[in-house]
Amino acid sequence: MAEHKAKHNNGSNRGTLYVVGTGPGSLKHMTPAAGEALEKADIIVGYKTYLDLIPGYLEGKEVLTSQMMKEVDRCRKSLELARNGQKVALVCGGDPGIYAMAGLVFEMAEEHDSDCNIEIIPGIAAVNGCAARLGAPLMHDFAAVSLSDLLTPLELIKKRLEAVASADFVVAIYNPKSKKRTEQIKIAQEIFLKYRDPKTPVGIVTAATRDNETITLTTLADMLSCEIGMQSTVMIGNSQTYIWNEKMVTPRGYSGKYKL
Amino acid sequence: MAEHKAKHNNGSNRGTLYVVGTGPGSLKHMTPAAGEALEKADIIVGYKTYLDLIPGYLEGKEVLTSQMMKEVDRCRKSLELARNGQKVALVCGGDPGIYAMAGLVFEMAEEHDSDCNIEIIPGIAAVNGCAARLGAPLMHDFAAVSLSDLLTPLELIKKRLEAVASADFVVAIYNPKSKKRTEQIKIAQEIFLKYRDPKTPVGIVTAATRDNETITLTTLADMLSCEIGMQSTVMIGNSQTYIWNEKMVTPRGYSGKYKL
Repeated sequence: MAEHKAKHNNGSNRGTLYVVGTGPGSLKHMTPAAGEALEKADIIVGYKTYLDLIPGYLEGKEVLTSQMMKEVDRCRKSLELARNGQKVALVCGGDPGIYAMAGLVFEMAEEHDSDCNIEIIPGIAAVNGCAARLGAPLMHDFAAVSLSDLLTPLELIKKRLEAVASADFVVAIYNPKSKKRTEQIKIAQEIFLKYRDPKTPVGIVTAATRDNETITLTTLADMLSCEIGMQSTVMIGNSQTYIWNEKMVTPRGYSGKYKL
Repeated sequence: MAEHKAKHNNGSNRGTLYVVGTGPGSLKHMTPAAGEALEKADIIVGYKTYLDLIPGYLEGKEVLTSQMMKEVDRCRKSLELARNGQKVALVCGGDPGIYAMAGLVFEMAEEHDSDCNIEIIPGIAAVNGCAARLGAPLMHDFAAVSLSDLLTPLELIKKRLEAVASADFVVAIYNPKSKKRTEQIKIAQEIFLKYRDPKTPVGIVTAATRDNETITLTTLADMLSCEIGMQSTVMIGNSQTYIWNEKMVTPRGYSGKYKL
């Protein structure tokens, strides 16, 4: 049937690839739009860690998962299936549009001239989820920088850190550290210390909204003594950020203008 | 009853202020956690435009809204009610943690020494929702900059634009323009043109996911001839961003490393 569909790939039986953001972890933070796409899909493709968070949506579906199937393979397979007329949901934790699969899907669809519908379903990204758990760290201009140098030259990462550190952005650091990659977070700290007070608040959130969530409030000077892992997002405050009642708060500037 | 509670404000009848992100507009993109907080609340406070998007949640509730009640007043009122033992939901469009009310709530709670629980419920922010509608513009390091100089000096805004333009960040511009404030977006364009190709893709999304949504793909050179308003988010691509199939795509860098 799938083959038959592929041969007559007109509008009515064109396959669809939903690229679905399931949010930070808890199903409470996954949108109805994401749930709907998972329900509509015939086949669900994803990294095991993320599929384990949505067991109810996998029942009665074909599920393609593997610890070993890397993102390029998952993406290729999903596009192949959608090209054959299937409805496929490619699952991403967080938001597919932020350091996740949305871009790769379009890159590969172009490369292989894939004829299928592609729909991106946004999710609560780590940057949003972690901010909410910390208080209100992102209330002013902010930047997201990934420290992974797998796909980005370290020189460019350093240049970007310098830029946002010097212009007083709140910064959310993605992929701060892995077992093998431990130097970049030290480099990031050094760069920020050139421009910001060592007492600048830093928040570290690991596995936000999941059962094993941890939240740490520390400072720029002390951040390296805290546990930081693959699942952590590190938020570095700007020059105005402070801690109140165990919450990290970046003021927006109202107090200079209004009576609060 | 509320007064009685306020006098004996122990753990059991402590008020709670939920700061609720309802997402970009369509209820499909509002999380169950947000819906739950709205249901638990006795009183719902918010700007009319956002409350109009969630009519089903207002039935049987006390609703405080006003076109004229400014954010500082809404926030003060919400904290007052929560201090008196009530369950209050303060509604924000998008994500309360991104250019919205979460920060002001903590600032004012501190100022008035408010004794209540404060819970931030994250939402799909404009930056996530607009990115999904455009394709995958944010796939690499990105920054969010607000052009509103109501609470931020223009010099700092310019400094930040220079920083992120020169370090090749994808940039999401919030509050690009209002009826009275039309100069900043020209300044932003000028700054980006110093560092980026005039053909750099720019996406403009207005009222993302709502009935009156508009999506425009243009370039850095032509962006000012497009309609940009209060409800618009402007996404400026980095040096690698391109348009494919009417989608704005920033490659993550896989193609240099893997066979796609």
